[in-house]
Amino acid sequence: MDAVERGRPGEDALEELRVELGAQAVLTGNDIPLRNRNDWSSKPPAQPLAVLRPSNSEEAARAIATCRAARLPFVPQGGLTGLCGGATPEPGWVAISLERMVGIEEIDPVSATMTVKAGTPLEVVQRAADEAGFLFPLDLGSRGSCAIGGNLSTNAGGNRVIRYGMTRDLVLGLEVVLPDGTVLTNLNKLLKNNAGYDLKHLFIGSEGTLGIITRVVLRLFPKPRSTTAALCALSSYADVAALLAGARSGLGPILSAFEVMWPDYWQVVTERLKVRSPVASGHGFYVLVETHGSDEATDAARFQSWLEEMMESGILADAAVAQSHAQVKDFWAVRDACAEFGTGLGPHISYDIGLQVGRMDSFASRCKTALEAGIPGCESVYYGHIGDGNLHLVAWVAGLPLGEQPKDAMDTIVYGLVREMGGSISAEHGIGTMKKKWLGHARSEAEIALMRVLKGALDPENLLNPGKVISL
Amino acid sequence: MDAVERGRPGEDALEELRVELGAQAVLTGNDIPLRNRNDWSSKPPAQPLAVLRPSNSEEAARAIATCRAARLPFVPQGGLTGLCGGATPEPGWVAISLERMVGIEEIDPVSATMTVKAGTPLEVVQRAADEAGFLFPLDLGSRGSCAIGGNLSTNAGGNRVIRYGMTRDLVLGLEVVLPDGTVLTNLNKLLKNNAGYDLKHLFIGSEGTLGIITRVVLRLFPKPRSTTAALCALSSYADVAALLAGARSGLGPILSAFEVMWPDYWQVVTERLKVRSPVASGHGFYVLVETHGSDEATDAARFQSWLEEMMESGILADAAVAQSHAQVKDFWAVRDACAEFGTGLGPHISYDIGLQVGRMDSFASRCKTALEAGIPGCESVYYGHIGDGNLHLVAWVAGLPLGEQPKDAMDTIVYGLVREMGGSISAEHGIGTMKKKWLGHARSEAEIALMRVLKGALDPENLLNPGKVISL
Repeated sequence: MDAVERGRPGEDALEELRVELGAQAVLTGNDIPLRNRNDWSSKPPAQPLAVLRPSNSEEAARAIATCRAARLPFVPQGGLTGLCGGATPEPGWVAISLERMVGIEEIDPVSATMTVKAGTPLEVVQRAADEAGFLFPLDLGSRGSCAIGGNLSTNAGGNRVIRYGMTRDLVLGLEVVLPDGTVLTNLNKLLKNNAGYDLKHLFIGSEGTLGIITRVVLRLFPKPRSTTAALCALSSYADVAALLAGARSGLGPILSAFEVMWPDYWQVVTERLKVRSPVASGHGFYVLVETHGSDEATDAARFQSWLEEMMESGILADAAVAQSHAQVKDFWAVRDACAEFGTGLGPHISYDIGLQVGRMDSFASRCKTALEAGIPGCESVYYGHIGDGNLHLVAWVAGLPLGEQPKDAMDTIVYGLVREMGGSISAEHGIGTMKKKWLGHARSEAEIALMRVLKGALDPENLLNPGKVISL
Repeated sequence: MDAVERGRPGEDALEELRVELGAQAVLTGNDIPLRNRNDWSSKPPAQPLAVLRPSNSEEAARAIATCRAARLPFVPQGGLTGLCGGATPEPGWVAISLERMVGIEEIDPVSATMTVKAGTPLEVVQRAADEAGFLFPLDLGSRGSCAIGGNLSTNAGGNRVIRYGMTRDLVLGLEVVLPDGTVLTNLNKLLKNNAGYDLKHLFIGSEGTLGIITRVVLRLFPKPRSTTAALCALSSYADVAALLAGARSGLGPILSAFEVMWPDYWQVVTERLKVRSPVASGHGFYVLVETHGSDEATDAARFQSWLEEMMESGILADAAVAQSHAQVKDFWAVRDACAEFGTGLGPHISYDIGLQVGRMDSFASRCKTALEAGIPGCESVYYGHIGDGNLHLVAWVAGLPLGEQPKDAMDTIVYGLVREMGGSISAEHGIGTMKKKWLGHARSEAEIALMRVLKGALDPENLLNPGKVISL
């Protein structure tokens, strides 16, 4: 970073770019909006040297060429809703924002695909699919702000992975600008394409460290003709596992959500956040089961009879079935209440753990005990997308501001247990900078070494988002 | 390849390996079985210098170290059922066969996963899943011979991709020995795992050019509780597209096959191969629709009413519904008859094209016309997994032996049209050596350059399966 230290690094190059791409493509100094200084993580904001806003992939390539010539590190930015610092600049870096690369390019109803610019917000993608008579199933709380390119870069998950898969599974093709400025276009629409290496998987989930995704071909799905949901109460985790097996077998591929809540979570949501629940408290576990079916005439009856089967076999202690779309939404309110934890609990630290389904409850109880024993006053609650092997947990010490929460001590306990139990330190949020020091708890030396080989091969000058996920 | 030219290259090293790993791990000279000299493609057989048969990944790493020390190129071999030369040795190469790395290591019913050694035949995997109460949905004609590691290396497809995805979509974790001998173990069981780059996708579908897959974690699915099938007759390709949209929407995710047959295919199968069909000849198109459902009580009635819906809307000209499992098999006999083309048509050349669904029929008619016009006596028939964008075609000149079939002229016409219509030269079989010269018809210069960067980064000495898929 010699250039940065020399004073006005790259100023000439940026000025040239301003002439070439127009004034709105190059923001510097006080023109840089606050939003480009940080993502949604707790990382402190940092002022980039400039924000470049190309309007297409050729301009993105031009922006990269400028950064490379001036030896300025650059970070791609989408909706900046990441939780791990993946899109946050360091001081003196250049941010390349995709906010002007927005819009649906094509919907192909016969191939059931949508081609879209990478800066397009997820909610715009969802709406366009809906208006064309399709479903684009990816859904996250940040849908109004997050960009589809960022969803790809972080391989975003969400609530319906059990039915439709992660973002990776919803992508058929993409265009990406490589760290050397090459525009690599593969807007594939085919489910099956074995002509050479499948390069798109290199860029999906690599958090903007191997290339800047500029366009995407997405899979579209038929709209479900029916939605059913039940909020179930169970007495043991063994029953939860049996219910999951029963749902997989008895509901088959229409199972669209299997969300488990431990009693500590339930207590916070119903008592502190005052969310009304259709089933009584005092049970061992709560599970929200949802289906997306294709037959409105028979799906509800079928779901009811499956629930009765589960009740008769003793797996369920209690269950409430949604009688309307409004009730389906009410049921989700219990699960979505975690978004309000800031209000109910005050400052807290969130985790996003991957674990084998059979080890979840053992992890939850050991983790809770260890946090209580190791950190005075530490409380924690557990919930998650259990069918996908994804456990969320939230930990806090009441009364402490965010900056004084003992995050390092919590991390040590949580990620130590993850390593011991063979899990993942991130099921869906990614690594960014926030979890980088723990990566070795989930991946072997050989795996991390290979990640470095790939990063070094694609970005030998280490100028694209350097130091995110791994260090060279 | 200096060593090869020096006479008895690597003989000492092979002898050392024989001592270390046992005599059954090193076959040379006349002990080398015929099967290790070629795959199922039309490529002429070649005698490797040796066949190494490690019994675990450490022995595979040891075998690689021996090859590297002697600078001998080495090719991984599974069931050798590939169709493009990916597993075929060149003279003087060493074949590393996984035939002794066979067996199921674990079935985890709660995670719904199976961990298996890479040399295990697909049929053994299917049977083990079935006995444990699950379905492993990948299915190919070569199921008894092909190895699961080879299925991964070629990202095998098959008949039920529309419901369960390609092999890539059925894999959660793997172990691979890198070209430098590093054993990289990531036996992940989690559907969601965003802790760093997802390395497995680098090895799946790269045809044994980036590493040797030694162990695999597979996803298991609930067994379908019902199977329904219909053989449908339609008058136009527009109706075929409408039927596909109707099946996606009305049958939803239980749709497990959508196999389209053009009338020329139908004629060969029913007239020359004498396969009995449940619907009359003379229609424009034939489609086999199948579902894998989860409700035996209502699925058959639901399927019947969906077919009636399609009939009433004028999409179907005729349809026969299977009344029993035996009839489902009979219906598949029409589609599977292509395996008997050798008997019915004599020597022929097979293609495996990827195309957007909307362009299939235009491709088929243009291709047929161009083959007839460009090659005297050339006939061709068309069929495929249309819902996945995968068209198969078979072309031949009657009376010519395989070696005299005008394959180059056919390739030029077929792949020229593929390029013109934005398709893929391989939907499922891969590239190997047989289609390498046509790769540029489906992938851009920038894409092929990136494939070379990856190959060069992982295998800088270019000793692992060199010259397959791409040349350095």
